[in-house]
Amino acid sequence: MDQPQSGHGTEAANRDKTPRTERGRRTLRKLLDAAAVEFGERGFHDASISGITRRAGTALGSFYTYFDSKEEIFQALVRYMSEQLRDHVTPIVQEAPDEIAAERAGLLSFLGFVREHKEIYRIIDEAEFVDYASYRRHYETTVARMRQRLEAGAARGEIRADAGEVHAWAIAGMNVFLGMRYGLWDETADICDVARIANDLLANGLKRRD
Amino acid sequence: MDQPQSGHGTEAANRDKTPRTERGRRTLRKLLDAAAVEFGERGFHDASISGITRRAGTALGSFYTYFDSKEEIFQALVRYMSEQLRDHVTPIVQEAPDEIAAERAGLLSFLGFVREHKEIYRIIDEAEFVDYASYRRHYETTVARMRQRLEAGAARGEIRADAGEVHAWAIAGMNVFLGMRYGLWDETADICDVARIANDLLANGLKRRD
Repeated sequence: MDQPQSGHGTEAANRDKTPRTERGRRTLRKLLDAAAVEFGERGFHDASISGITRRAGTALGSFYTYFDSKEEIFQALVRYMSEQLRDHVTPIVQEAPDEIAAERAGLLSFLGFVREHKEIYRIIDEAEFVDYASYRRHYETTVARMRQRLEAGAARGEIRADAGEVHAWAIAGMNVFLGMRYGLWDETADICDVARIANDLLANGLKRRD
Repeated sequence: MDQPQSGHGTEAANRDKTPRTERGRRTLRKLLDAAAVEFGERGFHDASISGITRRAGTALGSFYTYFDSKEEIFQALVRYMSEQLRDHVTPIVQEAPDEIAAERAGLLSFLGFVREHKEIYRIIDEAEFVDYASYRRHYETTVARMRQRLEAGAARGEIRADAGEVHAWAIAGMNVFLGMRYGLWDETADICDVARIANDLLANGLKRRD
């Protein structure tokens, strides 16, 4: 670090805590994965920094190398989960032959992700109360990607030409609710079937008009 | 009251606190309306019973006539808001000439309700952390009504015959996200336009196949 740090408040939040070594990046990931479990199981108020470092198997000092507070790691965690989800879904979506198939693959991989990371709902949803800006940013960036995909599909003539922002928010909401109902609440639902039914609604709803 | 009461815990929660007079029902509604403002502005943890009674203009004793705790009025409030929303939307939906028009009118009236009751998102969403059973019940009852409507429309031949549970969850999610984006976050969006675009997606997505 080149500059003196106060260790408190926004000034501290601005110091560059990005790890510079592979070992540092591994520790940071361990802390974030542990934070996902700690916040997911206990919720923001009951979660503790010592609970996170214990789960991560790191010293308390490592925590403070990267974060100044529970609030700060929570904020980083929302972004981390949002990026994990994006990195899980994006390559699958990009392999699809067209936009409708991409939305189906996207929903199916999202439902699979929810089954594997059930804590995602609790963490993203708690951000509404702990850090509203992170909550809103998660949805705005997710929907912006979806909208780009729709508009690219429309430009290629695969779906209706007017597909845009309202459609993207509608599809995002559809996916989040189907994930809650069939990914989070219901262990036994056939998620392929859910994705097929929902995608059939979209395939017709977004069909090109000539 | 006929039975001795402990005033604590589940036993107390079981005593019948339904008001028997019109005046009692008015007081109860005043308390619930005040609770919506108090919880909506301050969130569950910072909200207080005295804050609720102050806003309601009632004595503290009136609160304890109907509720034993902050948790109990919060739980009642989630149900109250869920019912208010239902009572706002249902008559509008019932006047629609067919199922697609009903969904459009339903979404439009929901978007209008959100504009008038912005606190609904914060309260329902906070139930996920304060009282999960209420949170889940709100969505399950809302979606069950939607599903009934879809199945009745399918039976009348107005929409595809296989419209059912997955479609109902998809539409509910769509509406909740459109309400957040265009009702809650954006004061200036033309909600008629939003409802028209979303309904056009549904009209085609749910079209009858012969």
